[in-house]
Amino acid sequence: MASSLLSRQLALSLQQNLRLTAPGCRYVSKAAAKTQMEFEYEGPSMKTEVPGPRSKELTKRLGEMQNVGAINFFCNYEESRGNYLVDVDGNRMLDVYTQISSIPIGYNHPSLIKVMSNPNNMSAFVNRPALGIMPPENFPEKLAESLLSVAPSGMSRVQTMACGSCSNENAYKAMFIWYRNKERGHNIPSDEDVSSCMINQSPGCPDVSILSFMGGFHGRTMGCLATTHSKAIHKLDVPSFDWPIAPFPKLKYPLEEFTRENAQEEARCLEEVEDLIVQWRQKGRPVAGIVIEPIQAEGGDNHATPDFFKKLRNIARKHGSAFHVDEVQTGGGATGKFWAHEHWGMDDPADIVSFSKKMLTGGFYHKDELQADKAYRIFNTWMGDPSKNLFLAEVLNVIRRENLLEEVTRSGKTLLQGLYQLQDQYPNLLSSARGQGTFCAIDIRDDATRNSIILRARDKGVLLGGCGDRSIRFRPALVFKEYHVHMFLNVFSDVLAEHN
Amino acid sequence: MASSLLSRQLALSLQQNLRLTAPGCRYVSKAAAKTQMEFEYEGPSMKTEVPGPRSKELTKRLGEMQNVGAINFFCNYEESRGNYLVDVDGNRMLDVYTQISSIPIGYNHPSLIKVMSNPNNMSAFVNRPALGIMPPENFPEKLAESLLSVAPSGMSRVQTMACGSCSNENAYKAMFIWYRNKERGHNIPSDEDVSSCMINQSPGCPDVSILSFMGGFHGRTMGCLATTHSKAIHKLDVPSFDWPIAPFPKLKYPLEEFTRENAQEEARCLEEVEDLIVQWRQKGRPVAGIVIEPIQAEGGDNHATPDFFKKLRNIARKHGSAFHVDEVQTGGGATGKFWAHEHWGMDDPADIVSFSKKMLTGGFYHKDELQADKAYRIFNTWMGDPSKNLFLAEVLNVIRRENLLEEVTRSGKTLLQGLYQLQDQYPNLLSSARGQGTFCAIDIRDDATRNSIILRARDKGVLLGGCGDRSIRFRPALVFKEYHVHMFLNVFSDVLAEHN
Repeated sequence: MASSLLSRQLALSLQQNLRLTAPGCRYVSKAAAKTQMEFEYEGPSMKTEVPGPRSKELTKRLGEMQNVGAINFFCNYEESRGNYLVDVDGNRMLDVYTQISSIPIGYNHPSLIKVMSNPNNMSAFVNRPALGIMPPENFPEKLAESLLSVAPSGMSRVQTMACGSCSNENAYKAMFIWYRNKERGHNIPSDEDVSSCMINQSPGCPDVSILSFMGGFHGRTMGCLATTHSKAIHKLDVPSFDWPIAPFPKLKYPLEEFTRENAQEEARCLEEVEDLIVQWRQKGRPVAGIVIEPIQAEGGDNHATPDFFKKLRNIARKHGSAFHVDEVQTGGGATGKFWAHEHWGMDDPADIVSFSKKMLTGGFYHKDELQADKAYRIFNTWMGDPSKNLFLAEVLNVIRRENLLEEVTRSGKTLLQGLYQLQDQYPNLLSSARGQGTFCAIDIRDDATRNSIILRARDKGVLLGGCGDRSIRFRPALVFKEYHVHMFLNVFSDVLAEHN
Repeated sequence: MASSLLSRQLALSLQQNLRLTAPGCRYVSKAAAKTQMEFEYEGPSMKTEVPGPRSKELTKRLGEMQNVGAINFFCNYEESRGNYLVDVDGNRMLDVYTQISSIPIGYNHPSLIKVMSNPNNMSAFVNRPALGIMPPENFPEKLAESLLSVAPSGMSRVQTMACGSCSNENAYKAMFIWYRNKERGHNIPSDEDVSSCMINQSPGCPDVSILSFMGGFHGRTMGCLATTHSKAIHKLDVPSFDWPIAPFPKLKYPLEEFTRENAQEEARCLEEVEDLIVQWRQKGRPVAGIVIEPIQAEGGDNHATPDFFKKLRNIARKHGSAFHVDEVQTGGGATGKFWAHEHWGMDDPADIVSFSKKMLTGGFYHKDELQADKAYRIFNTWMGDPSKNLFLAEVLNVIRRENLLEEVTRSGKTLLQGLYQLQDQYPNLLSSARGQGTFCAIDIRDDATRNSIILRARDKGVLLGGCGDRSIRFRPALVFKEYHVHMFLNVFSDVLAEHN
C-alpha cells in the first residue's frame, strides 16, 4: 500500500532538500526556526473503528503463522509522521504509547531518514559484524558520540546488546562475575570451579542471587524473569531461581502531600531489603546485586522518592552487593532528564545502568570494576548492532538541537496539571495522577473501566497503553509538545465523560 | 576512512545500474550470466601483520570503553566484498569464518545494497515497531516469502526474536508452557499456580527441565546457559539449573569408515539419555524438552549420524518431551541443505527449530501445538526486527537464483577432499577431517598449534576460526566457490608445512 509519502521524502532527501509538500502536513515545531523543518499531521483522523477491516484481515492472515492474541492493529508506518501513527485502514492516531515507549523522536523523523540516505552509512546496515571480535572502524567514535556522550554519572564504560532482556541478563552476569571474584579475593577459578560449572553445579555455578522488587519488570528471558514480578502471565510455567523479592513502596500521590506516610512506607521496604539480604546470605545464596527500576513501569508506574533510592544504594554498598538501575523504559529522556535516576541527585547513583527501547540499541553502562575480567565472559555473536548506534547518535543530536528535554519537562507539567484537573473533576473514576516529565500515569476505578477507556480513546484517535492492575501509562515521544498534550486532554476528557 | 567503493555503488545502484568499474575487481561468479553481476577481489592482499597499527590504535581506544580481550582487528566493511574482508590497515583477507558464521552471501552483496536503496523499504529501518502488538502491513507477506518459504518439514508457524539466545530462551518457554498444559490436561492455571509463580516458587514456576548435551552450545543468557556445556569460561560464576546433561556421541571420522564403533557409541549415549529422563522424572524435575544441535559447532564440530537423531527424536516422543533442534549455527544453507536436520531424512524431524546468524533475524519455528496458548506469554517489545526480514527475503532470492545450495555442496566436497589429502600428508598434525557442505572442520595436534595455525593463516590472508579444544571450523559464506576453496587450501597447505 501507499508508501508515497516516504518515497517522495527519500527522493527529496537525496537531493539534500528536506522540504515536503505532501498535502495534510504542516509545520509543528515551535522551534522550527532553529531546527530542521518537521512535518506532522494536524490532528487525528478516524475512518473506521480500530481495528478496521484491513487490520482484521491481516490479523487473520498472521494468525495462520503465529499467536496474534496481542495484536492491536496493523500499521502503515510509511504514512506515519511525528506523533501520529497511521493504521492500514487509514486511521491516524495521536500516539501516546509509541510502540511500548520505544520511539524516541516520533515516526519518520527527517533526521533519521537522512541517516538512511547517507551512502557512508549503508555498510553498517548491510554487513552486521560480530562486534566483539571484528568491529567496524568507526565503532569507538560512534560509541563516544552516542552512548558515552550521555553516560550516567561515574560510568565511562558501555556494552551494547540486542535487546532489553539480553542487556539485563548480561548485566546480571557481570554482577555475578564481579561478586565471585570479590569473594575469591582474586580472579583465578579453582579446578573445582571449572569442572563443576560445566555440569551446572556449585561452586562453579554458584548459589548467588539478585534481589528484585515485587511489581518490577526486567524482561522475559529466564534470568530476567526471575527478577520480574509484575504479572503472572509472564512467569507462569517457567522454572525460576529462589532469589529474594522485596516489597516496592506503595506510595500515596501526589508524593509531596503524603511525605510522612510515604517515608514510613519506604522505611518499611528498606528494612525488608536488609532483612532479605541477611536471610539469603544465611541461606547460602548471597545477594550479588540489587536490581530496580527508577519508576516501576510495566508494574503500574510505581514511584519512590530520591531518599528511598539513596538509602537503597547505601544498603547495597554496605552489604557488598552491586546496584543495578534498570532504565530500559525510563531512560532516554521521557522523565525530563536523560536518565530517570538523575532526579535522585547522586554522584554515584549505580554500579550498572541498563537500557534499550528509546535508545534503539540494548546495552548497559557499568563502573570500571564491573567489567568482566576476561574476554568471552560477556559475549555473543552480534553484541548489539552498529546500525542502531548510527540512529541513536542522530536521535541525540536532535534531542540537543531541539532542546527536547526542556520540551518534555514543559509538556509533562501541562500533562500532569491536566491529569490533576481531570482527577478533581472525576474523583470516582480517576486517582493517583503521577509522573516525571511526560512519563505520567493515572489510576482508573477498575481494570474493566481502564480497558474500556483505552479502547474508546483509540476510536477517537488517541493511542494509550495500560500498566499494572488498573493504570494508564502515558508514553509519548520526546517530540510531544504542549499542544499535543491539549489535544490528548480534550479527547481523554470526552472519553471520561462517557465513563462517569 | 575510505567508503568510496560503497558510495559509488549506491550511486550506481540508485540509477538502477549495478555495473561497477572499481579497480581491482573482476567477475567471480561462475553463474554470472544468469545472475546479477557480482564483484569481488582477485585474492588476498596483505600490507601489515594482523592486527596492524591502525587496528591496534583503535583497540586501545575501544579499550577505554569496554573489554577488548576478544577483539581480533577492526574492519573496513565499506571496502569488503563477497568473500573478502578488508581491515583498517588495508589488509584484504579471504574470510572462511564470516563473523562467526553469520554472513550468508558475503559482504556488500549488490542485492542487499539494492534492498537498502529501495525507498519503499526505508520505513522498516527508521520505525522499528513493537511487532507483537502493531506490526507493519507487509509483515505477514514478508514472513511468508522469507521465513515460511524455508520452514522445516511439519512447521507452518514461526516467531521472530532479536538474537540466537532470545530465540532459544523463548523456545524453551514454549516447551515448558506446552508441557505444563499437557500435565494439567487443560490450560487453566490454579490459583496456587498464579500466586506461587509471582514469587518464583513451584508449582507456578515448576521444577521442569531441558535435557541438553555435553559439548552443546545454545547461548549465554541464563536459561540458554543452563543447556550450554562447551567451555567453562561461558558458564563460570553464573547460577544455573539442575537439569540433565547427556553425553554427545564421540565419533570417529570419516563416519562411513567406523560405522560399527560409532553405532555402539551412539547407542551408549541414547541409553544414557533415557536413563536421565527417568532419573529426572523421579527427582521431580521432568524433562519438558530435549535440545540439540545437528552438528555441535562451538563445542568442536561434533557430528552424529541420522540414525542417532532419528532414535533420539523417538525417545523424546516416547517420554512426552518436546524435541528442539537448535539450527542457530547450522541453519541457512552451509551444510548443503537449508537446514542441517534435512540430512536426517525425516518427515517429522522436530517440534521446535530455532535459528539466527545467517538468517539475519533470530526466531524459532514450531509445530502448531507448541504455540503458547495465550497472548503475552511469548512476548517482548521488539520481537525481532522487520528490517532484518527484508534482508532475509533477498538473501533467499539470491540463494535460489544462484543455486547456492548446489554451489555449497560442490565447494564443500572439494574442501573436504582437500582436507583429507592434507590429513594424509600431515598425519601428525591433522586428524578427523569432517563436514557437510562447507560446514567442515579438522582437528589439530594440540590447542597451541591450532592457535598458531590460525594466526599464521591470517597473516597470509586467510581468516579462520577455532572451536572445541583443538579444532578449526570452516564457516565460509554461501558464495564460497570451488576456486575459493583452492585458494584457501594453497594457503593452508603453506601454513601446515611451517608447523610440521
